[in-house]
Amino acid sequence: MRKKEYETVKIIPLGGLEQIGMNMTAFMYEDSIIVVDCGLSFPDDDMLGVDLVIPDVTFLKDNIDKVKGFVVTHGHEDHIGAFPYVIKDVNKPIYATKLTMGIIETKFREHNLLNNTKRKVVTYGQSIILGKFRVEFIRTNHSIADSCALAIHTPAGVIVHTGDFKVDYTPVFGEPIDLQRFGELGKKGVLAVLCDSTNVMRPGYTMSEKTVGKTFETIFDDNPKSRIIVATFASNVDRVQQIINAAVSHNRKVAVEGRSMINIINVASDIDYIHIPEGTLIDTEEIKKYPDDQVTIITTGSQGESMAALSRMAASIHKKVTIKPGDVIIVSATPIPGNEKSVARVINELSMKGAKVIFQDTHVSGHASQEEIKLIYSILKPQYAVPVHGEYRHLVKHAELCESLGIDKDNIFILSSGDVLELSPEKGEKTGTVHNGSLMVDGLGVGDVGNIVLRDRQTLAENGIIIVVLTLDKYNGQLLAGPDIVTRGFVYVRESEMLIDDATTVVYDAVLNCLDNKNCDWAKIKGVIKDSLGDYIWKKMKRTPMILPIIMEVD
Amino acid sequence: MRKKEYETVKIIPLGGLEQIGMNMTAFMYEDSIIVVDCGLSFPDDDMLGVDLVIPDVTFLKDNIDKVKGFVVTHGHEDHIGAFPYVIKDVNKPIYATKLTMGIIETKFREHNLLNNTKRKVVTYGQSIILGKFRVEFIRTNHSIADSCALAIHTPAGVIVHTGDFKVDYTPVFGEPIDLQRFGELGKKGVLAVLCDSTNVMRPGYTMSEKTVGKTFETIFDDNPKSRIIVATFASNVDRVQQIINAAVSHNRKVAVEGRSMINIINVASDIDYIHIPEGTLIDTEEIKKYPDDQVTIITTGSQGESMAALSRMAASIHKKVTIKPGDVIIVSATPIPGNEKSVARVINELSMKGAKVIFQDTHVSGHASQEEIKLIYSILKPQYAVPVHGEYRHLVKHAELCESLGIDKDNIFILSSGDVLELSPEKGEKTGTVHNGSLMVDGLGVGDVGNIVLRDRQTLAENGIIIVVLTLDKYNGQLLAGPDIVTRGFVYVRESEMLIDDATTVVYDAVLNCLDNKNCDWAKIKGVIKDSLGDYIWKKMKRTPMILPIIMEVD
Repeated sequence: MRKKEYETVKIIPLGGLEQIGMNMTAFMYEDSIIVVDCGLSFPDDDMLGVDLVIPDVTFLKDNIDKVKGFVVTHGHEDHIGAFPYVIKDVNKPIYATKLTMGIIETKFREHNLLNNTKRKVVTYGQSIILGKFRVEFIRTNHSIADSCALAIHTPAGVIVHTGDFKVDYTPVFGEPIDLQRFGELGKKGVLAVLCDSTNVMRPGYTMSEKTVGKTFETIFDDNPKSRIIVATFASNVDRVQQIINAAVSHNRKVAVEGRSMINIINVASDIDYIHIPEGTLIDTEEIKKYPDDQVTIITTGSQGESMAALSRMAASIHKKVTIKPGDVIIVSATPIPGNEKSVARVINELSMKGAKVIFQDTHVSGHASQEEIKLIYSILKPQYAVPVHGEYRHLVKHAELCESLGIDKDNIFILSSGDVLELSPEKGEKTGTVHNGSLMVDGLGVGDVGNIVLRDRQTLAENGIIIVVLTLDKYNGQLLAGPDIVTRGFVYVRESEMLIDDATTVVYDAVLNCLDNKNCDWAKIKGVIKDSLGDYIWKKMKRTPMILPIIMEVD
Repeated sequence: MRKKEYETVKIIPLGGLEQIGMNMTAFMYEDSIIVVDCGLSFPDDDMLGVDLVIPDVTFLKDNIDKVKGFVVTHGHEDHIGAFPYVIKDVNKPIYATKLTMGIIETKFREHNLLNNTKRKVVTYGQSIILGKFRVEFIRTNHSIADSCALAIHTPAGVIVHTGDFKVDYTPVFGEPIDLQRFGELGKKGVLAVLCDSTNVMRPGYTMSEKTVGKTFETIFDDNPKSRIIVATFASNVDRVQQIINAAVSHNRKVAVEGRSMINIINVASDIDYIHIPEGTLIDTEEIKKYPDDQVTIITTGSQGESMAALSRMAASIHKKVTIKPGDVIIVSATPIPGNEKSVARVINELSMKGAKVIFQDTHVSGHASQEEIKLIYSILKPQYAVPVHGEYRHLVKHAELCESLGIDKDNIFILSSGDVLELSPEKGEKTGTVHNGSLMVDGLGVGDVGNIVLRDRQTLAENGIIIVVLTLDKYNGQLLAGPDIVTRGFVYVRESEMLIDDATTVVYDAVLNCLDNKNCDWAKIKGVIKDSLGDYIWKKMKRTPMILPIIMEVD
């Protein structure tokens, strides 16, 4: 056998690259596997009642001895949220920067998992050896502090995973993205880049986080007498810092509302990532003691989430904060796709209470726009490009952008979850797929809600249910009781008694007719009930409720 | 009694001004009522299973002898869609321009209502006398042809209702908005303006519809070999015309897909509002006969509606059109709030099939931006301003804009559905409310789905239902059969048999225990079932399905 000329490394997305959310990518070389990120995803509109979606890690479980550990790019839910679930099956060491690890630990504490897993905090520039891989953590900028790109040094070459990033030359906390190190790596040669596609549709550059701070100062200047309430993403520590800065410079106290906001401020304070002058923070109970012009409230709810603090204020069900005319409310966020209507509803409700709501120009994105993406490719000059972190249309656009930069079309790969991409300096190709998919989490159940359950929920949601119960004599098959009809989510019964009475008669006749027949069995009776009632309801109302016949037998 | 110095007219919104959709406004003077528009609204996310929402017209029914007729601004659903329902209760004459009436008549034909109602087609500049009112139809521009503003001449003064409008100096069909007439009215004195708020958040001017035509030409130029599929709003006849123009100038045939698109092209062709050179239109069946570079398909589905033609193409369930690599698909529309994710899903699906999807810069709005709104106020110089057609936050912004133009704050009114605003040259004030609200349409049912039904649907959607049935002996109350547990939308039963078995035992014990008790009645048994099962499921799964006990009795 001829000796292999080139080494080959495998890249295997496991968390569904085709959608934003649930980021998880395995890198495999011989008997070493490392996993980048462990994210969850929030349910689509048609996943009724589902709380979260997590990756199916069967592939990792099947190769558990090869898995050397998790390396984490940053502390957002779509990159770390699945840890409490996944770690139960794949209990391997976790490597992350300080804030990221702090957030992971808060999660583990909530799940009573804290002592089970080896965790190591890393710093920018540090490398860790994991089997045949060396993973280097490189500073980037993003909408959460302590974000990293990863340079994964493999026997086949260096692969750079950007994580979620932007290029911010004037970050609020810390330093700009480490472009020097990117340059160095590029000069030495990069095999492949996995790069963030979120904002690939946007021409130009993403603005610096610092510009938002100036906007806050202006708004605080312009509204010297009002109470100012600011809603933003809890995880954006730099944003929170800038709100606090504006409050302090305007002699205001700061109260914090919303569990995740309180959590993150605690974590960030513990590691000195946020600076709050002593005497600034007050309990929300205390805001009554101060005049409006000395109060700022920082709150969750910038996405219109129905249970978040801002939504509860808007709906007048918040226990401690009552919105009043003259309040100034800044919504410092852009709605995540799908949340537009919820955000609008909250703004409308706040406006109806006489509050002034400011939501334009009070947010910048944490993701790189087209020119920043081009910058990364131009510095790294990789042989292969693997667009990640975006919907399919974003990945396609990203691929076009790579082509425009001179990367060979055949060297650009759009992967789906479970695809195995083998890369060597000689060639790159998709060579197969591994077991992959996602699991729906509903309450404590993981994976027990599947497509049949969801389809039923959909039918129930749209049309409700009609239950038909009857009792038969076990020996002679005679009808002893019923058929009775009970409905839920169908029509308001008191106003539709006639309809239900008529429907009962229809079913009664159909059942008696069936029972007269010698070949009548339960399946037949159920079929007759569904057909007769379904037809009747459709003719009368043009609706298709779920019809559920239940037969009981008595000795 | 002293003679009244000033006449007073009442403005009564009935269709919920606080939200986009369901436009209907009554104007009342002594024993004359006229109604502007008769729109429907599409259901909010929490109105599960509801097809449409229409205004509750109890106020009109209670005053039926005073109602002189309906005057209609344009043919969009949110201005005419409720006619087939409302006309059954309020069968009064309808006045509308040609295209608008054509669309109304198509609706009536579908509802078999065509011969019941007096309908009169009006032209721009025409006035009609309705009781004490004279209503003048004034040309405007909008995303549908034949749109009007209304000058309502009342004994108290002239009220201008802009309808939905933009200022388009270079419209595709017909003339620009009749600013001269606005000027004339303004010079003579205008009592009040009810003005479109949709785009009041947008600075500047809305672009001319014609600019989209140029974009189409460029896209057709750039893709000479591909089949080109264009999705847009069916009702935007000018947009459709421009697509046809681009197709014709590039020697392409045009096939039309989607029922509403076919309907509107028929209506517009009948009245010569659209010009399709002979031999251009082909049946979709025929596209196979032509090479790709000679085919254009115009289709519905620009909002990602799941049953529309484009969505069916994207999902590979369209019978006549199969998307293939190289197809160019233009989505010429902006997602209506709430549709963002559906549109994205369709674009992703099309991209996965290898189609090139173009959706940026292929649409302009049909609504006036800030500078156009300022123009209207500056020409009309009304005494009172009543911002309409927008969410509450838009109305608030619109009110600010009016103030900035010098209108007295006390003369600007943000109304809610049912408010009665009395205006005279002397004063304007809200003086009361009338019966108002909305009715949900589900299938053939109007108003039979209410809050209880919706709440049940919500619970069913999120957690499913557990039905517990049991049969009792009528005489001694003994348990004859059951309790049996049946679930839908809860868990996939085959994988959760243990859980259901255990739950059945829990319920069985609880029921037996209850039956042993002398005071046991049906209500108690049902309560015991709900409590014991609810507790068990919550402890085991942290879920709260609907629990529905059903008891049968046998002699």
